[in-house]
Amino acid sequence: MGELRVRSVLVTGANRGIGLGLVQHFLAMPSPPKWVFAGCREPKGQRAQELQNLASKHPNLVVVPLEVSDPASIKAAAGTVEKLLGGSGLNLLINNAGAVTISSLENETLESMRQLYTINTIGPMLLGQAFLPMLKKAAQESPGTGMSCSRAAIVNMSSIAGSIVEMYAWDYGQVTSYRCSKAALNMLTKCQSLGYREHGILCVALHPGWVQTDMGSGRSRTPPLTVDTSVRGMLKVLSSLSEKDTDTFLDWEGKVVPW
Amino acid sequence: MGELRVRSVLVTGANRGIGLGLVQHFLAMPSPPKWVFAGCREPKGQRAQELQNLASKHPNLVVVPLEVSDPASIKAAAGTVEKLLGGSGLNLLINNAGAVTISSLENETLESMRQLYTINTIGPMLLGQAFLPMLKKAAQESPGTGMSCSRAAIVNMSSIAGSIVEMYAWDYGQVTSYRCSKAALNMLTKCQSLGYREHGILCVALHPGWVQTDMGSGRSRTPPLTVDTSVRGMLKVLSSLSEKDTDTFLDWEGKVVPW
Repeated sequence: MGELRVRSVLVTGANRGIGLGLVQHFLAMPSPPKWVFAGCREPKGQRAQELQNLASKHPNLVVVPLEVSDPASIKAAAGTVEKLLGGSGLNLLINNAGAVTISSLENETLESMRQLYTINTIGPMLLGQAFLPMLKKAAQESPGTGMSCSRAAIVNMSSIAGSIVEMYAWDYGQVTSYRCSKAALNMLTKCQSLGYREHGILCVALHPGWVQTDMGSGRSRTPPLTVDTSVRGMLKVLSSLSEKDTDTFLDWEGKVVPW
Repeated sequence: MGELRVRSVLVTGANRGIGLGLVQHFLAMPSPPKWVFAGCREPKGQRAQELQNLASKHPNLVVVPLEVSDPASIKAAAGTVEKLLGGSGLNLLINNAGAVTISSLENETLESMRQLYTINTIGPMLLGQAFLPMLKKAAQESPGTGMSCSRAAIVNMSSIAGSIVEMYAWDYGQVTSYRCSKAALNMLTKCQSLGYREHGILCVALHPGWVQTDMGSGRSRTPPLTVDTSVRGMLKVLSSLSEKDTDTFLDWEGKVVPW
């Protein structure tokens, strides 16, 4: 356990909610990263205003156009990041971008299922592939051999709603397309963990808690967690991880979530 | 526990492998079903010859054109089955159709991920939706209130490769697109189980074992199980299920597989 100290980090879906919170916390660290890459679908759009305001104050924050469901956009973003890193590695990839559609089992369609799978599952896989050379490089650059999020890691933002064991809050929201995509993301996390272990890259799935974001809100109850509390908790958890934790599913307080 | 006695059953992907084996076993039962619907992509194709030969000998076997990745095809098949059932219900839907592509984590693409998810996960969901009215009717027609596969059930053919806990045979085949689609199918089974419980429909995921089929073979090792052994085992398992077993993941011998 120690402080999370990364030279470079990429956060996807960084213009609002948990993604924006993560960016803010990285920028406010006592030893902030040299590079905070903030992936966002429309950097010039109104919804990215807060991110742009931050970027105008923090030269280490780079807003990168990134649509995680588009392989060409991912490739372009990887090119941009690689160029700016100038030959050094990327320590941390946080696959935070995600989507949910309020739905019941009966009104899911081929399209609704496919859309959430593309954003929530395929996107993180393609990002892992595209940034693998930079993550490998980060692991090679770092002294020692142990795994950590400060060295090289992929963090997939999952959800307890994707836990097949828990079937959390079914009566509150069936969201089958979301649950299936997150269960698949959990499987992907295991695959990445096994596939990238030899390169020294730690892979973990996180449940951020039920957070006051656009995604978490807009229903009948107010979520109990602020973005700040969730993000602070998750960063503390990430700072504590070592090789024994790769391929686990943890919540924002560090508790293991069953698959 | 008792014998599996269904009046009507639909098996998808029924022209070869485990699907064909299931059809053969249903036809050979001491009290065979009145209707065995065998879904198959190309009923007139060469690969459906064995199924057509069976149909010419068994008037209770109906070959139904069915492409599980095409909502229109599913709708048409449901219409055909409903008409033939003439107002009575469908006892058993076996979502057996599936696909795998030999792949490593690194060579998966958006297309490979999407294709297997559509066939292995979205198809079974759409089939559950389309046949729900007939499954409900079967549950209503049946005396008693307990759940069973003889009354009304959805059986999803999953795989231990989709177990996030097991990560079975990773070193032998990474098949990330397949694993993610089957983990998602397991989640879908839970969703169907919770969603359809009130209608008296039992839902279960099965691992057929490693079987000598086109899907299981064609690699360096010969699978240990014959289709006959696997199918015989699974039918015995299905005959033993009651409401306590809905939403479980069982192998062909009835052992619980962890999610």
